Amino acid sequence: MKKNISRRSPIGVFDSGIGGLTVARSLFEILPGENIIYLGDTARLPYGTKSKETVIKYSVEITKFLLNKNVKMVVVACNTASSVALPYLRKLTSLPVIGVIKPGCKAALKETNNFKIGVIGTLGTILSYSYKTQIHKIERETEVFSKACSLFVQLAEDGWTDNKIAKMVAKEYLDEFKRMNIDTLILGCTHYPILKNTISGVLGKKIKLIDSGEEAAKEVKRILEQEDMLNNQKKNGVHKFYVTDFQKKFKEISERFLGQPIHDVKKVKL
Amino acid sequence: MKKNISRRSPIGVFDSGIGGLTVARSLFEILPGENIIYLGDTARLPYGTKSKETVIKYSVEITKFLLNKNVKMVVVACNTASSVALPYLRKLTSLPVIGVIKPGCKAALKETNNFKIGVIGTLGTILSYSYKTQIHKIERETEVFSKACSLFVQLAEDGWTDNKIAKMVAKEYLDEFKRMNIDTLILGCTHYPILKNTISGVLGKKIKLIDSGEEAAKEVKRILEQEDMLNNQKKNGVHKFYVTDFQKKFKEISERFLGQPIHDVKKVKL
Repeated sequence: MKKNISRRSPIGVFDSGIGGLTVARSLFEILPGENIIYLGDTARLPYGTKSKETVIKYSVEITKFLLNKNVKMVVVACNTASSVALPYLRKLTSLPVIGVIKPGCKAALKETNNFKIGVIGTLGTILSYSYKTQIHKIERETEVFSKACSLFVQLAEDGWTDNKIAKMVAKEYLDEFKRMNIDTLILGCTHYPILKNTISGVLGKKIKLIDSGEEAAKEVKRILEQEDMLNNQKKNGVHKFYVTDFQKKFKEISERFLGQPIHDVKKVKL
Repeated sequence: MKKNISRRSPIGVFDSGIGGLTVARSLFEILPGENIIYLGDTARLPYGTKSKETVIKYSVEITKFLLNKNVKMVVVACNTASSVALPYLRKLTSLPVIGVIKPGCKAALKETNNFKIGVIGTLGTILSYSYKTQIHKIERETEVFSKACSLFVQLAEDGWTDNKIAKMVAKEYLDEFKRMNIDTLILGCTHYPILKNTISGVLGKKIKLIDSGEEAAKEVKRILEQEDMLNNQKKNGVHKFYVTDFQKKFKEISERFLGQPIHDVKKVKL
């Protein structure tokens, strides 16, 4: 009983949890007319510590859920899922499936002058080498320096985003990037844009920060334009949120990530 | 095809992940002759952010797994599961099911002189009020001060246990306990014993730290003695480890928590 896909169909976005709301936020800003369905797999987060097979399995389940909601496109906001699951998700549908890795890499390569690029993310993302591999696919002669910044996720969720501890942790993680003389740093985790000010405070203004989620949102716009599938309604799109579990402090954290109050959250079983 | 339970049957221990290895470590030390089966639900960690219903469901599944392995007792090393699941697990078996909350509270009440007790744990544990409720059940006239120390888990896993950041984070979380004049602090999370030195460095020697996991291990010994079920073999017991997913850096982190190399880890599907 699937209806036809039209330009008014929603964009489906998913993440392992609430981090992907920073990607949703970028989509809201760049494409205010689009209807968006967001699913956060809060019952099974985090993905970063899980095996490839498990992350693929979960991502396939969620993509099927979104396709059943008649989305016109799937955005994988989660870096870990983007690293490992895209080919498997593309087998499920002929609709566009966009991850955050490639848009982040393309933007970084457009920005860099000295072709020394830093990448920060969760341990899972960094150990997958997905950013490094993607950058080298596009431009082999690039030096890529990667680092897991595990504490940033908890700092972002706790709202410790620009206190002295956040600054000290950022300094501890990031100082070496200055020594490596990078001119561009990819924020390879959906939580990290929340710490943007602190990160650029440590690195200085000469190092340009690339927000993968924001770049993915721009890519979504490009593809929808290309395929003549933009929702050009005048009013704001409808935004629906699904979670697989009601996380503690969900409202408080989600509003910090989304930059606005969140309404209409439903719990679903996949 | 269940065999009979005997004194040589193993003790079953479970946790949402690797944190419970600090409890296993206490069991190894206090009861070296016991055979122990440990299950870490690494595919579905953390429990602290999940709903009560979800944590109960997972705990029931794991307890059934352990009972099928013919354990003589179940130890719930996870604070979150201990908070909410014990009554449901006790419906599954007439064997002893031990959590970490009650032993921790009893030990703290034995230790305190001024009946001002602090409790630290994950957000889930603190919001469940399980330590506070349990302390008041035993001794109503106790002042209990609780605080979630979310960053401690990641610090323990990353091995940032006594650097300047760990010290500053500990100071930020714990300074107020000194103002509240507590004389006893319960470490209500399996990860926190890894930070014991840093925590007592901030609080000073006058405030006694209670490790809930260690107290649970002592309780296990008491019950086995009482029921004449101690494994009094001369050689060391056999220790088996199961996980529901192979976590990144499992070996490195688990050895830090267990205090010894870990062998014979199997992945299981529940």
